[in-house]
Amino acid sequence: MFDLVLQGPAMLSDGRHDACWIGVQEGKIAAIGQGDAPDAAEVHIVTEGIILPGVVDGQTHACSYGGLPGIESTTRSAVAGGVTTLVDMPYDNPDPLNTKARLDEKIATINAVAYADMALYATVAPGQDNSEIAPLIEGGVVAFKISTFESNPTRFPRIQTPQILSIFETLAPTNIPLGVHNEDQEMVHAFMAAAKKAGQNGLVAHSESRPASAEMSATAQFLELGAAAHAHAHIVHLTTARGFQLVDNYAFDGYRATGELCVHYLWFDPEIDGEELGAKMKVNPPIRPGEIDALWEEILAGRVALISSDHSSWPIDNKLTPSIFDAGAGIPGMETLLPCFYTAAEQRGLDAAALTAEMLSERPARFFGLFPQKGAIRIGADADFAILKHQPQIWDSANAHDDLNWSPFDGRVFSVTVDRTYVRGQLAWDGKNICNQPGSGTFVPRGNGHWFEDEETPS
Amino acid sequence: MFDLVLQGPAMLSDGRHDACWIGVQEGKIAAIGQGDAPDAAEVHIVTEGIILPGVVDGQTHACSYGGLPGIESTTRSAVAGGVTTLVDMPYDNPDPLNTKARLDEKIATINAVAYADMALYATVAPGQDNSEIAPLIEGGVVAFKISTFESNPTRFPRIQTPQILSIFETLAPTNIPLGVHNEDQEMVHAFMAAAKKAGQNGLVAHSESRPASAEMSATAQFLELGAAAHAHAHIVHLTTARGFQLVDNYAFDGYRATGELCVHYLWFDPEIDGEELGAKMKVNPPIRPGEIDALWEEILAGRVALISSDHSSWPIDNKLTPSIFDAGAGIPGMETLLPCFYTAAEQRGLDAAALTAEMLSERPARFFGLFPQKGAIRIGADADFAILKHQPQIWDSANAHDDLNWSPFDGRVFSVTVDRTYVRGQLAWDGKNICNQPGSGTFVPRGNGHWFEDEETPS
Amino acid sequence: MFDLVLQGPAMLSDGRHDACWIGVQEGKIAAIGQGDAPDAAEVHIVTEGIILPGVVDGQTHACSYGGLPGIESTTRSAVAGGVTTLVDMPYDNPDPLNTKARLDEKIATINAVAYADMALYATVAPGQDNSEIAPLIEGGVVAFKISTFESNPTRFPRIQTPQILSIFETLAPTNIPLGVHNEDQEMVHAFMAAAKKAGQNGLVAHSESRPASAEMSATAQFLELGAAAHAHAHIVHLTTARGFQLVDNYAFDGYRATGELCVHYLWFDPEIDGEELGAKMKVNPPIRPGEIDALWEEILAGRVALISSDHSSWPIDNKLTPSIFDAGAGIPGMETLLPCFYTAAEQRGLDAAALTAEMLSERPARFFGLFPQKGAIRIGADADFAILKHQPQIWDSANAHDDLNWSPFDGRVFSVTVDRTYVRGQLAWDGKNICNQPGSGTFVPRGNGHWFEDEETPS
Amino acid sequence: MFDLVLQGPAMLSDGRHDACWIGVQEGKIAAIGQGDAPDAAEVHIVTEGIILPGVVDGQTHACSYGGLPGIESTTRSAVAGGVTTLVDMPYDNPDPLNTKARLDEKIATINAVAYADMALYATVAPGQDNSEIAPLIEGGVVAFKISTFESNPTRFPRIQTPQILSIFETLAPTNIPLGVHNEDQEMVHAFMAAAKKAGQNGLVAHSESRPASAEMSATAQFLELGAAAHAHAHIVHLTTARGFQLVDNYAFDGYRATGELCVHYLWFDPEIDGEELGAKMKVNPPIRPGEIDALWEEILAGRVALISSDHSSWPIDNKLTPSIFDAGAGIPGMETLLPCFYTAAEQRGLDAAALTAEMLSERPARFFGLFPQKGAIRIGADADFAILKHQPQIWDSANAHDDLNWSPFDGRVFSVTVDRTYVRGQLAWDGKNICNQPGSGTFVPRGNGHWFEDEETPS
Repeated sequence: MFDLVLQGPAMLSDGRHDACWIGVQEGKIAAIGQGDAPDAAEVHIVTEGIILPGVVDGQTHACSYGGLPGIESTTRSAVAGGVTTLVDMPYDNPDPLNTKARLDEKIATINAVAYADMALYATVAPGQDNSEIAPLIEGGVVAFKISTFESNPTRFPRIQTPQILSIFETLAPTNIPLGVHNEDQEMVHAFMAAAKKAGQNGLVAHSESRPASAEMSATAQFLELGAAAHAHAHIVHLTTARGFQLVDNYAFDGYRATGELCVHYLWFDPEIDGEELGAKMKVNPPIRPGEIDALWEEILAGRVALISSDHSSWPIDNKLTPSIFDAGAGIPGMETLLPCFYTAAEQRGLDAAALTAEMLSERPARFFGLFPQKGAIRIGADADFAILKHQPQIWDSANAHDDLNWSPFDGRVFSVTVDRTYVRGQLAWDGKNICNQPGSGTFVPRGNGHWFEDEETPS
Repeated sequence: MFDLVLQGPAMLSDGRHDACWIGVQEGKIAAIGQGDAPDAAEVHIVTEGIILPGVVDGQTHACSYGGLPGIESTTRSAVAGGVTTLVDMPYDNPDPLNTKARLDEKIATINAVAYADMALYATVAPGQDNSEIAPLIEGGVVAFKISTFESNPTRFPRIQTPQILSIFETLAPTNIPLGVHNEDQEMVHAFMAAAKKAGQNGLVAHSESRPASAEMSATAQFLELGAAAHAHAHIVHLTTARGFQLVDNYAFDGYRATGELCVHYLWFDPEIDGEELGAKMKVNPPIRPGEIDALWEEILAGRVALISSDHSSWPIDNKLTPSIFDAGAGIPGMETLLPCFYTAAEQRGLDAAALTAEMLSERPARFFGLFPQKGAIRIGADADFAILKHQPQIWDSANAHDDLNWSPFDGRVFSVTVDRTYVRGQLAWDGKNICNQPGSGTFVPRGNGHWFEDEETPS
Repeated sequence: MFDLVLQGPAMLSDGRHDACWIGVQEGKIAAIGQGDAPDAAEVHIVTEGIILPGVVDGQTHACSYGGLPGIESTTRSAVAGGVTTLVDMPYDNPDPLNTKARLDEKIATINAVAYADMALYATVAPGQDNSEIAPLIEGGVVAFKISTFESNPTRFPRIQTPQILSIFETLAPTNIPLGVHNEDQEMVHAFMAAAKKAGQNGLVAHSESRPASAEMSATAQFLELGAAAHAHAHIVHLTTARGFQLVDNYAFDGYRATGELCVHYLWFDPEIDGEELGAKMKVNPPIRPGEIDALWEEILAGRVALISSDHSSWPIDNKLTPSIFDAGAGIPGMETLLPCFYTAAEQRGLDAAALTAEMLSERPARFFGLFPQKGAIRIGADADFAILKHQPQIWDSANAHDDLNWSPFDGRVFSVTVDRTYVRGQLAWDGKNICNQPGSGTFVPRGNGHWFEDEETPS
Repeated sequence: MFDLVLQGPAMLSDGRHDACWIGVQEGKIAAIGQGDAPDAAEVHIVTEGIILPGVVDGQTHACSYGGLPGIESTTRSAVAGGVTTLVDMPYDNPDPLNTKARLDEKIATINAVAYADMALYATVAPGQDNSEIAPLIEGGVVAFKISTFESNPTRFPRIQTPQILSIFETLAPTNIPLGVHNEDQEMVHAFMAAAKKAGQNGLVAHSESRPASAEMSATAQFLELGAAAHAHAHIVHLTTARGFQLVDNYAFDGYRATGELCVHYLWFDPEIDGEELGAKMKVNPPIRPGEIDALWEEILAGRVALISSDHSSWPIDNKLTPSIFDAGAGIPGMETLLPCFYTAAEQRGLDAAALTAEMLSERPARFFGLFPQKGAIRIGADADFAILKHQPQIWDSANAHDDLNWSPFDGRVFSVTVDRTYVRGQLAWDGKNICNQPGSGTFVPRGNGHWFEDEETPS
């Protein structure tokens, strides 16, 4: 007898099944079958929706504003949005995650307050030597991240090129990627200074002061440094098709290079939404006008490694500044990630369920070494599920669970609703209420899988 | 409660699982799980082997010699070799399968005498119009085949180029491939006449009279005719890496073109085995010297659509002729297909189980539109299994089940033995004896899947 | 003091010069300069035209109808059209050029009656062994040609595939190309029989009975045979862009393969000109509808080795048959080759003079091993010139010099006129009259240059 | 009657001629011929050498040390080495060439003291706006150059990325390339500091503190900035094959990108020559070990735009410093450029004369818009010649003409000697003595030609 059986249409790891059951035992998927559902302590039958693997959000900033306590609200929002695992960024307030001691502290907080499972990025501070890298990997971090632009001297500093190379050299013998926030600081500073001097302060000024050229300048340099060290270089957000094509050139030349897309680059266009949203759609790098079609081509060509939320827990006050340049960059996006991507794919006539399972679950899980524990509905995997129903909804952040009460998606129509979320077999969201507790989520260390499976593996 | 449960390591459709159980109900895979096996009428535990999907042999000549009755012995041999589905060629004795009436007759025989399941190729006779093509497709054939070389004026005739084009044009709007036996008749006739005139009559003379150039001449012409009609052109046996590269050029140019390899091209080399085997290794096109390494590169590069046996039921008398030119072409290979390929892959240090499941089961099933019913261990598929154990064996055709009592593989060592075979949940072979009955096998019509899934599908 | 000095704008081997002089001594270009012209026995100043290298027509049938005497009228037409060297095909009436004895005879005739220089193709008759190939090469032929279609059992027979391979194998160690008339005989015969049976007899029936698929079937087979022998395979006329792309695939794979275009494929379209011209535009392979733009793209992409006339000396009676199937294939095109190509290039906004010098002079000269003696205005080369003036003309075959009195180009407007032609320094055409004599032309043997200069040269 | 006639074997623009004459009138090549030489005021017959086009050195630093007066000795050395045109870098002492006024001054100096012709690079100073760019182009500069590394705050400063982008944007509508000295300043500073701290001070320390990764980091960033602006980005020295391949990726993607090689990267290897030469082979970026073979492959694959000397007029005192880090970077290389490259090509069995004419004359002339005035022996071009004889020599800087009295090439054997040099028809070097005068050389402004001729030209 199983602890739980789900029954209905599902996107399994080997494709869609229209009528199957999934048996859960001790938090794992113990069996998958068709026909009559076996006995279980709890049976849930999906009649008009579809069972998807729980979403693995590859890029979250849970603690940028409120520090470690931000984990609680962010993961609560996650399960309400069908996200069962978050990969959290290291730029915590007040101090980033750059030592084993801070990793232990963050893990402890996760295990105490999280509603969803969490994997963790780490970073290296300016001038810090690489001695903490091995303990951090040993401690289970899935990736490292640095920035070529200083957002904050302590929390989110710029790392100079010699140190980037040094980190790459340390990571080269491993499967651990080094991700980058990719903007050229000299360019952005110069353009921002010029804009301010000219008295500009709107969203257009923000975009123009961080042009695609600044993004690509940092991207090209970072990719080449990764290539020089034969390490895995990962661009955590590319906003143009050209970016993914450049990454692909490196992959074609035999280097380990990948690029990631965030869902808002597929949804908003400053020329359409800019006037309404203003600073509410300020993200870095900025959303480019007229790029959405080209980005979809990159996804369908297989050049986008994964799609993530880049969720940031900024309060709205942080956006309501006289000048755009004083507004915080980043937007809440955890709870909208799944319905937003699904809706966008469906509107293009694509197989939205299959693409969602691939781009939001299996690929991020594989990318961060969490597969096969996470990322797909298959025997032996964690029983993480997001059950969608085809019931359209108008997004209203007042009903969201991130304690932020604002969203650039307010008023947008999504074609689906998250009906249920299970984390390791436990009901976390029933379509109306959060059903699990702080501490139901847990820290997930990196496993043995890795992205460049076909390549000769570094030892 | 299931009818049957298998338990042990298995190559599932989404990868290897070291300890799982597979529940079978009414001949289908009803559930797959891990942990304690559920109740079942019959439980079989695999302790030291591996459960593979049953092999789908994409190229069998069951009826070339003995006519339709040949189905019985060929399928008996199949199940003893882990082959659960055969795709049989149309060149039956005395008349080929080129009408709906003959299809009905062959299906009736299959359903009466087969031990394994069978799918069917059809053909078109010289000068026959294309009016039978639609009824044959409607009747469930998986592919058509013609030859550019006449082996027999009725059974295995040469089709002229205008008729090849015409068949391609009729098939173009469908997903049905047209396969070809690819040898240039003018070249082979001329070279054979020269060899005979020179008094040559050994295996070398056979090879030299059917050189790679004759094979490639016919191949290139056939591919171009398929391209002209925008139909799916399939070369049923290519013996050189160049052949697969030529096919790949057509695929790269956007045409539907595929090439198949037979397992003996990966095992024998005339310069090593020719003296011992002579006519016993006569196949058409001939096995080339020194080509095995290059062919493996084609497999690993993904340019080989599938691997098959090209099993022919010739009695040994047919080989013991004074001149090689009078000997029948073709060899028994059904029962050796699986152990032979597995052994060859293992000897190269490859993941033999994964490659076997891919090249001998899933790819042929997908190619012939039999997937997902056949070709992989997944929920809802037919419960066709081949269970291997790692027990080396020296092949001895005296113990084979094809009633032929000879094999070019006699004395060769295989690293594995077929321990059990199940056809749709029924035990067909227990490692020593055939356990099912004539008529346990059944005709399998083409399903909805097709090879060029990603391409724009012809309606 | 030079024998002759030409002065004016010229397309030299290293580019256009707007004001230069060319000094000729003993039939060779002895000096090229700018500034005041040096002393000369004869000075000709070009004021409003341009001096081009004499055209090298890579494909002429001077003797298909009238036998060797046809050389006189064909070469007379040549010099009137700016063509100073013809590469003549071997399909002479009544017997083709397939022995050293016939080569000697043809050379003797050329030296006696030709107005322009001539290089020669040879052929091999069905069943003939290859023993004449070496003497023919020794005797100076530039290439061999065979056909896959029998136009005439003696003069223009089909060569079977084993013999094609054999010829390729004999030529493989040399730089001599084997050209092919590329049409699949079985296909053409079948389609022609069907058309006749259906009572069709117009130009459309001709085209449909020799479709692109028949051309490509023969082309693919021939290219593969050449590849098998590692010899130079040349398609003497491709009528579609696909043809050139297929050739390019072979070149990309490292084989010596080339394709040629004839100028009428760039000028006529059966859907536009068919009704007016009927059999007057019957050529084999047929001109395809709507292909001209795509063929120009092939030229500009560098995939067309050279452009030729395929001039055939058929009398008009040969065209005025009740059925298109009884009409001779081929058209007069010698005298129109240069103005036609120049006009077509100019109409597309291209640099017509540069393209003409490249595609009609330098490339054919290089292709047939005649460069640097022929094909470009450079020191030491033969003093062969075609001087164009920008004076439009309406073509009227009554004024042509081929004794045929008909042309498919009648009434077409060319943007240029051939003002003067010099053959090895001798004035051959002054814009109104033929100025040289029978025997002024001479046989030109193949030199040392070859097409695949960059490739590793066969010894 | 000509002013001058040279007679003998020559590498003309359309290939080698074994016996020709070249007639010069008023400094231009007025005629080229074969046979008896025409009358001339002066006739020079080359019996055992070869006449090459004068070398166009694409990268000279004549004024880095001694300021504008350096032009005299540098150009004197040039003509003694067969170099007839120098493209001089803008990093003059004490101030760089970044205004029209300084251009005028430099031109005046050239016209007063130069022995060879000179074209000029310009630059833009840090923080300088782009208003001088148009006047400088108008004034005839052939290219602009900046550095990503500060060698000197005034003369050779680092330009920040926003300014690089800005310069690119200004140059984008033109054919003028922006060249770069490509080293990442942050990396070099960090690595140098570390080396100094560790007490290292030899050539190895120099190389390790400026690794290929620092070169490639700057290169990638610069190429991407050029791509962003759709301008022509030129890397003035790449030291590894990877560098040229990266440039080629940009070209393949449709951007204007080129890379240049300096001859010392083809001649020295630090593991072979380092111990002997030490600081005498210090150049930036450093010469890499074991890279020569791979660089030749890049040349033969056509991925190296041109080859230059990067001649720097440092006195030897500048090299004899206790620490390598205090030694000047750069070496004298003007007079050795031609014999060094010719010898290296010959030693590899290549056609040294043809490669020299291509890589050292025609390509640099085309690259900098000086062709057809410079770079090839053709009618109408400047009568600039370098006559080589096949007489081996052991290099001895004591006999050189650059007033420097040291060279890393001292003691090296070259297989050829520069026998004569002519600048615009005037004998400048007779194999023993300088024969022309200060002021015989002249400034050469950029012409109309450009490198990306086949590309759609920016207006």
